[in-house]
Amino acid sequence: MKHLSPLLEALIEQLQCLPGVGRKSAQRMALHLLERDREGGRQLGQALLNSMNNVRRCDQCRIHAEESPCPLCADQRRDASLLCVVETPGDVLAIEQTGYYRGQYYVLHGRISPLDGVGPQQLGFKGLMTLVSERQVKEVIVATSMTPEGEATAHYLVELLREWDVQIKQGVQVSRIAHGVPIGGDIDLVNGTTLSYALSERKVLSVQST
Amino acid sequence: MKHLSPLLEALIEQLQCLPGVGRKSAQRMALHLLERDREGGRQLGQALLNSMNNVRRCDQCRIHAEESPCPLCADQRRDASLLCVVETPGDVLAIEQTGYYRGQYYVLHGRISPLDGVGPQQLGFKGLMTLVSERQVKEVIVATSMTPEGEATAHYLVELLREWDVQIKQGVQVSRIAHGVPIGGDIDLVNGTTLSYALSERKVLSVQST
Repeated sequence: MKHLSPLLEALIEQLQCLPGVGRKSAQRMALHLLERDREGGRQLGQALLNSMNNVRRCDQCRIHAEESPCPLCADQRRDASLLCVVETPGDVLAIEQTGYYRGQYYVLHGRISPLDGVGPQQLGFKGLMTLVSERQVKEVIVATSMTPEGEATAHYLVELLREWDVQIKQGVQVSRIAHGVPIGGDIDLVNGTTLSYALSERKVLSVQST
Repeated sequence: MKHLSPLLEALIEQLQCLPGVGRKSAQRMALHLLERDREGGRQLGQALLNSMNNVRRCDQCRIHAEESPCPLCADQRRDASLLCVVETPGDVLAIEQTGYYRGQYYVLHGRISPLDGVGPQQLGFKGLMTLVSERQVKEVIVATSMTPEGEATAHYLVELLREWDVQIKQGVQVSRIAHGVPIGGDIDLVNGTTLSYALSERKVLSVQST
């Protein structure tokens, strides 16, 4: 492929650093931008350079932001006594998009996974404990994923918070997000594990006496 | 989503100018780059700016290149008497990747499609005729797509080349790429139109007489 324009070749090469983008998609993207959206391509290039050079992690919640504390941590209208622990910044975006949650976050940037060499040390549990006592947090919502690693992380976290609470005597409550059949999900399309879990963790509805 | 980092938000927004990338994929891409490949992100940003600002069309074959004539047109080792007419620069890349073809190209940047307001004027047929006579082209291979619009373009082109050849008395041959069942393709997975075409255009094999 030495005959191609070296700049175009470099662009196609570089686009493949995006997750899920192979050579064919990269070609399509590069040609689309060149043919139909040069201004968009320029703006994307500038946005990439700006973000890569200026976005850092908030010292408190460890989410991506260009300032620390980040806009979420600095927002006085949010309930600082409520702390939601998630695995990734993407989880924060997903929860924020619901518009339901008004507390604060803590991002682990991973989950305990001995096979990948990720232990509790890598996940910043220490910073989490500091935040819990500094902010006088009343409830920690553990929103790690429902995978073996996510569950292990949740269990470890619960134990740690219990021990920490004995020391700081703050009466911190720990909760786990609900699991089960998704809302709007067809029962027959849900996987067996979820369905067994949903059955065993069924919720008793009040029966009206006649 | 006003609480997010404005730079990250701008990046997610801007990534959606890539074809086939929606909000969710854009988020995943932005976070992946920030978390795991900042250097790649920087290089991609730079490559985008470089290409958008410096890549233009070759005056001769109309392919994307930063110089004109492009490296393909300037390559003396290629057979200039053979000209392959394609719809998009992507088609050139696909043909080049086979390594089979050693002639030159002409990119139409579209196909005749009255519904989309694309007529023969928009497709640079004039430049093609000029190239045919200037380069003393002996064969024009029409490699437009096998769609109604691609076929219409091919027919139009064949007529035009015939008339042009009467004027320039060059004896230009016009050919169309072969269509049929793809190599390695299962007969039962090929669509009906292709199969009918493949049957009606069947090739007689020589029978050895005993």
